[in-house]
Amino acid sequence: MRGPPSPSELPEVNAAGGERLGRQLGFLLEVDRAKTVLRRSYLADASRRENDAEHMWHVALAAFVLAEHGGPGADLAKVVAMLLVHDIVEIDAGDTFVYDTAERAKKVDAERRAASRLFGLLPVDQAVSFQNLFEELEEGASEEARLAKALDRLLPLLLGWASEGRTWAEHKVTAQEVRAVNAAVAEASPALGAAVEALIADAVGRGFLPEA
Amino acid sequence: MRGPPSPSELPEVNAAGGERLGRQLGFLLEVDRAKTVLRRSYLADASRRENDAEHMWHVALAAFVLAEHGGPGADLAKVVAMLLVHDIVEIDAGDTFVYDTAERAKKVDAERRAASRLFGLLPVDQAVSFQNLFEELEEGASEEARLAKALDRLLPLLLGWASEGRTWAEHKVTAQEVRAVNAAVAEASPALGAAVEALIADAVGRGFLPEA
Repeated sequence: MRGPPSPSELPEVNAAGGERLGRQLGFLLEVDRAKTVLRRSYLADASRRENDAEHMWHVALAAFVLAEHGGPGADLAKVVAMLLVHDIVEIDAGDTFVYDTAERAKKVDAERRAASRLFGLLPVDQAVSFQNLFEELEEGASEEARLAKALDRLLPLLLGWASEGRTWAEHKVTAQEVRAVNAAVAEASPALGAAVEALIADAVGRGFLPEA
Repeated sequence: MRGPPSPSELPEVNAAGGERLGRQLGFLLEVDRAKTVLRRSYLADASRRENDAEHMWHVALAAFVLAEHGGPGADLAKVVAMLLVHDIVEIDAGDTFVYDTAERAKKVDAERRAASRLFGLLPVDQAVSFQNLFEELEEGASEEARLAKALDRLLPLLLGWASEGRTWAEHKVTAQEVRAVNAAVAEASPALGAAVEALIADAVGRGFLPEA
């Protein structure tokens, strides 16, 4: 059983945009599956877990809204591009829970293979460009990567706080662990780092995030 | 019954980033509801309908992938920003099916009120900036708006084709209507317009999109 072919197999699409366009549309269809990769985070209303596509939208939007709190030199379009692609590898490699350190270490190779296969669906210049964005974010050395990583931490914290700690309770996560994982936020932005502290303190105070 | 307050009500968040940061985080929490607004389109695998957050991610990513097929003068970051916010108004106004012309005309006022309330959660300079992006897209006159609109049409067509016409069958949509709605794509990009024609022709040929 198989569905329709990839658009790259339609001769008319290839005629219209060269083989490039067929590959590009094929990539966009394949990554539709990010909508089916569930994360540990719940929606703000705690009604269900969010998926990778929803999360990538939320953090990319957050980049536009919160960029002013990051360093002045970050290229916003690059931060947004990083965030729009950063979890696509989970289509093949599966979601990795940020509080599961052992799982995160094991996933590095699987995510590298996933990046190669999925970005490799694109024309080669774009494959390289997306692969570079993904690696730059993983390395976390550039100003853009630091801001993107900070937002990728901050949004789940915000949802955790709003949903009264649903994910933290399910996985027995402590305030100490939340502080450690979110230390990257303060490195990218003192203001966002202080907001992280305030949200954690409020969650502890309301009793849905145990100190230890 | 109510959940936690908005972050703008946490004094420590306001201290960290001024009142601005509290408002920005409050906005990001409120628009989380875009994840619960269902569209008519199905995922590529036809397993379920997609929601607005997933759709906004998919079209924003498509802007990075397909920008080369639009006019040379479009500011890509602006196209992406437009696409990341364009369906936020549906949190209040509900989804509008592109093939329901009467419904679309009726929704204009509701969407304007929704834009005012939702973007109004942001600091005023950002509220104005997002409101302007939203209106520029609605008017469709700029090169950025034309490309954004084209992508907003193309992705549902791609999903309709991949899911073998599930949405079209449910709503009795014909090839003639699909061509009319997607005419905007060719205006923004001849190559994408030709791909639209090829996908429609293939869908008709395979028997899941009736000519009339």
